[in-house]
Amino acid sequence: MSEPLHVNLSIRIFSDRKCFGPGVATLLHRVEERHSLRAAAASMEMAYSKAWAVLHNAEEGLGFKLLHSRTGGRSGGGATLTDEARRMLAAYEDYCTALREYGDRLFAEKFAFYPELTRRP
Amino acid sequence: MSEPLHVNLSIRIFSDRKCFGPGVATLLHRVEERHSLRAAAASMEMAYSKAWAVLHNAEEGLGFKLLHSRTGGRSGGGATLTDEARRMLAAYEDYCTALREYGDRLFAEKFAFYPELTRRP
Repeated sequence: MSEPLHVNLSIRIFSDRKCFGPGVATLLHRVEERHSLRAAAASMEMAYSKAWAVLHNAEEGLGFKLLHSRTGGRSGGGATLTDEARRMLAAYEDYCTALREYGDRLFAEKFAFYPELTRRP
Repeated sequence: MSEPLHVNLSIRIFSDRKCFGPGVATLLHRVEERHSLRAAAASMEMAYSKAWAVLHNAEEGLGFKLLHSRTGGRSGGGATLTDEARRMLAAYEDYCTALREYGDRLFAEKFAFYPELTRRP
């Protein structure tokens, strides 16, 4: 009747405000692929103004820039990640992977009693 | 300028659906204090119909009852937690405490580089 339980973690980083989480991480990946914040936002069905505000808020909270922006020039403008953005993104993903692995093991241990609850008459 | 970073975890349990998390846990604590789902819901500024739906969905997902309900009788009705609800609530809180402790230690390790990013000119 009831399926095995599993745990789902939402992992967000704060300073004086929320400044890094799954939304910012996805946005940075899309910028890296598309070299454009506008294209990155569109690929997530997010308004450009919203994507800009999310990144600006993250930059203010972190204390450094996440994107290099160029307007015009030979490459026709576009955006790339700063070294700091790459480092935060890599650390966030490394952290999430390690925490989820631990969390799954701990969950199996702490909720080992669950099947017996569902077997009662 | 920028404050130290910290991590915030949202921890939710799923079977075939979301069935346990901070909302259900708070609701169960309030029922335990107030012996009434209606009073518990009101204390959280939640509609009774919403609280009922949240608990019903959790019970369906978990495969057992969370509340004993009595109508009328010497005690004038009211609600108490089932043994299974107490066990889930205790396990959830134990799990959250242990995972947050680990998560904080891991965060300090994985983000130890952060202060140097904010010190750059």
